[in-house]
Amino acid sequence: MRKILVIGAGKSTAVLIKYFQDKSIAEDLHIIIGDISIENAKKLTEDHPHTHAMQLDVFDVDTRKEAIRNADIVVSMLPARFHIEVAKDCLYYKKSMVTASYISKEMQELNTKVKESGLVFMNEIGVDPGIDHMSAMQVIDRIRNQGGKIILFESFTGGLVSPESDTNLWNYKFTWNPRNVVVAGQGSAAEFLQEGAYKYIPYHKLFRRTEFLEIDGYDRFEAYANRNSLKYQSIYGLDDVLTLYRGTIRRVGFSKAWNIFVQLGMTADDYILANSENMSYRDFTNSFLAYSPTDSVELKLRHYLKIDQDDIIWDKLIELDIFNPDKKTGIPNATPAQMLQKILLDKWTLDKGDKDMIVMYHKFGYELDGERKQIDATMVSIGKDQTYTAMARTVGLPVAMATLRILNKQITTPGVQIPIRPEVYTPILEELEEYGIIFKEKECDYLGYNPDGVKG
Amino acid sequence: MRKILVIGAGKSTAVLIKYFQDKSIAEDLHIIIGDISIENAKKLTEDHPHTHAMQLDVFDVDTRKEAIRNADIVVSMLPARFHIEVAKDCLYYKKSMVTASYISKEMQELNTKVKESGLVFMNEIGVDPGIDHMSAMQVIDRIRNQGGKIILFESFTGGLVSPESDTNLWNYKFTWNPRNVVVAGQGSAAEFLQEGAYKYIPYHKLFRRTEFLEIDGYDRFEAYANRNSLKYQSIYGLDDVLTLYRGTIRRVGFSKAWNIFVQLGMTADDYILANSENMSYRDFTNSFLAYSPTDSVELKLRHYLKIDQDDIIWDKLIELDIFNPDKKTGIPNATPAQMLQKILLDKWTLDKGDKDMIVMYHKFGYELDGERKQIDATMVSIGKDQTYTAMARTVGLPVAMATLRILNKQITTPGVQIPIRPEVYTPILEELEEYGIIFKEKECDYLGYNPDGVKG
Repeated sequence: MRKILVIGAGKSTAVLIKYFQDKSIAEDLHIIIGDISIENAKKLTEDHPHTHAMQLDVFDVDTRKEAIRNADIVVSMLPARFHIEVAKDCLYYKKSMVTASYISKEMQELNTKVKESGLVFMNEIGVDPGIDHMSAMQVIDRIRNQGGKIILFESFTGGLVSPESDTNLWNYKFTWNPRNVVVAGQGSAAEFLQEGAYKYIPYHKLFRRTEFLEIDGYDRFEAYANRNSLKYQSIYGLDDVLTLYRGTIRRVGFSKAWNIFVQLGMTADDYILANSENMSYRDFTNSFLAYSPTDSVELKLRHYLKIDQDDIIWDKLIELDIFNPDKKTGIPNATPAQMLQKILLDKWTLDKGDKDMIVMYHKFGYELDGERKQIDATMVSIGKDQTYTAMARTVGLPVAMATLRILNKQITTPGVQIPIRPEVYTPILEELEEYGIIFKEKECDYLGYNPDGVKG
Repeated sequence: MRKILVIGAGKSTAVLIKYFQDKSIAEDLHIIIGDISIENAKKLTEDHPHTHAMQLDVFDVDTRKEAIRNADIVVSMLPARFHIEVAKDCLYYKKSMVTASYISKEMQELNTKVKESGLVFMNEIGVDPGIDHMSAMQVIDRIRNQGGKIILFESFTGGLVSPESDTNLWNYKFTWNPRNVVVAGQGSAAEFLQEGAYKYIPYHKLFRRTEFLEIDGYDRFEAYANRNSLKYQSIYGLDDVLTLYRGTIRRVGFSKAWNIFVQLGMTADDYILANSENMSYRDFTNSFLAYSPTDSVELKLRHYLKIDQDDIIWDKLIELDIFNPDKKTGIPNATPAQMLQKILLDKWTLDKGDKDMIVMYHKFGYELDGERKQIDATMVSIGKDQTYTAMARTVGLPVAMATLRILNKQITTPGVQIPIRPEVYTPILEELEEYGIIFKEKECDYLGYNPDGVKG
């Protein structure tokens, strides 16, 4: 039997294990789940005969090395910063490995040795990064093979709540790591290309410069710019592209309301609030407003950020109860972002029956035979339940599919890599369709940002 | 003769040297000016018999040690990060020292040994920090000695252009380090106390929450909050104060216009602009605005930041020529802040005959015999010329005065310290008056932020 070692029993691991278990007889697989908590690992075995759990602390060198030595291939579902320890052992024991995380500098530095050893270290093969790479490169390569030249590429992804579970004014619930949502966009300005011009949006303007997106059957979405849209420009072979933009999808109106938190300073994560433990939600809100002996916190906020009396944004703030003088977060030494996260969790946590939704939208603008054309490709995936969420499935399935194909020598190009070659994306995108993860393409008129070629 | 070693021939050193030279016979002083550039050092000696210049690279250990060993006292006018090397040698050779800079962590760590050696390491004795400490503590101590209790302390300082040289719409020219002006306020939120409540202003709102200040004969000013108003709370003995605020003074209207740069993202210093070397001022401005094939950069900016056609802010932007398509900064790999600084230098550099102005404003609120009272103290100092600027004089003179008093054993309390004790501030403030640096006090009605004691 071929042994697959899966390290880290995280949110997407259940989907991954189920995939391997379903194929364990046909593919002759034995699955070892290693986690720092043996209980967590055991929950995922579900008494399946071809699966066993082990206690594995990634910093317990002997246990880690022994587990990797015994495996035929390794999947690391650990937090990204821990992959490198696993990767070094995989290199030493000549095992290929798979992660859903961004390639770190340390991981990239292993590339030459990984290549020399004929191993495949596949990374960024979850949903974003992952399915976005594969689905984009499939269309880009097809256009190029037809002789077309890509002039525009825009790519948007969002983790949202499904329409049937969409029950609050923000049309949003946390479906993955809440912290990432609260601090999203912080750091240096978002950078992207529009019609050949580099453009920059500072954090405090990010949520006021959104784009709209329509998906048939799912109505309208909006997207705000990711920090570095240019990261994959050369990797995708888009050095001559005029427009390059990557964004995060939300329902329309989310960003305008979220901007209130940004403007107040509630999303800051670089300092600690005095006496945070004893602050009420109202105190927290008031700490970002000027002192007044007479005016209410409500009026001060309305005036400061110029929110009209009949603005829906106001109802969104009320829904989150940010003016409540009795509720406290109780977190000592909290940053504003930590306080806000706690307040949001009260209202944005998925209920038992709630389903999540992954939405992806790519735009490809190109020139072919002297004509400008555009293809829009969209994918919507809705979760089944709280275990087989859309997020867990879209992350876990491509990881599992890549792992099995590397084990079966169907993916063989060695090196530290991301899934941008046909050898990887063709079979995996095809198999993802069997699981309902399907891109719909539509030919559109090319508009870009400058249909008349005016210089602006 | 007593030897004073002055290291670093910076902007304030000329004033310092002149002070020592004027007293060199009466006080039996010999002044050694050490600078990495012997030419810079020589310029300051002015062939004065009791002064000589030497080439001194602070990282040339032997020369540095020898110079310090030969001196009776050391003044470091180097950039703040270099003081520690000088301080360690001063400790070793048992010499007292003086700087105008903030006490670094490394400097503070020397405190015990400095005390044991009976040395005085006086820091923060320029203008801000420096004169602000001394003038504030003099009034605070006086109120306390009368039995009063401080309930409010607000302190504001600004380096501005003098009224007679105030010739642009911004009422501002660079009188010290331009870079500090461009990046002022960046980092975590400004934190302060108002009527017992901690308040926080994020950077992108800092220039929209100013306070007004009036000074007789000088009209109206405004001030924006410094990053950490609470830094000296315990050091000043103000742990029970209700209101504590420190700010930077500008002429009215500066902050509202400066906010345009903040909102655009032009003050960011944490990333590099693509192709900055070849960007025109107009390109630079346009890089923060959305692409449009038809709309002008001007209209896009007006619309984005909602600037009315007749708003004076617009004239301020035009005055700076930020829409010029022909002028280039020519700086390769520039951050937005570096580009902006270059653009501002075109217009905000002092002309030959221009004079600068230092403005300081303190408010002291206190309770005495059951009554609430307030004292406002203000100081305005105007420069003489481009060498004896107000900034150079208000930094250089207190440094010089402290140095001579330490040498004369009039200031003796040992340790790493700032000028907050009467032993230091009383004689120095008195002597500063001889140089025209005078605080005017005014008793006012106490208003605070909550005259009626309402809970807000």
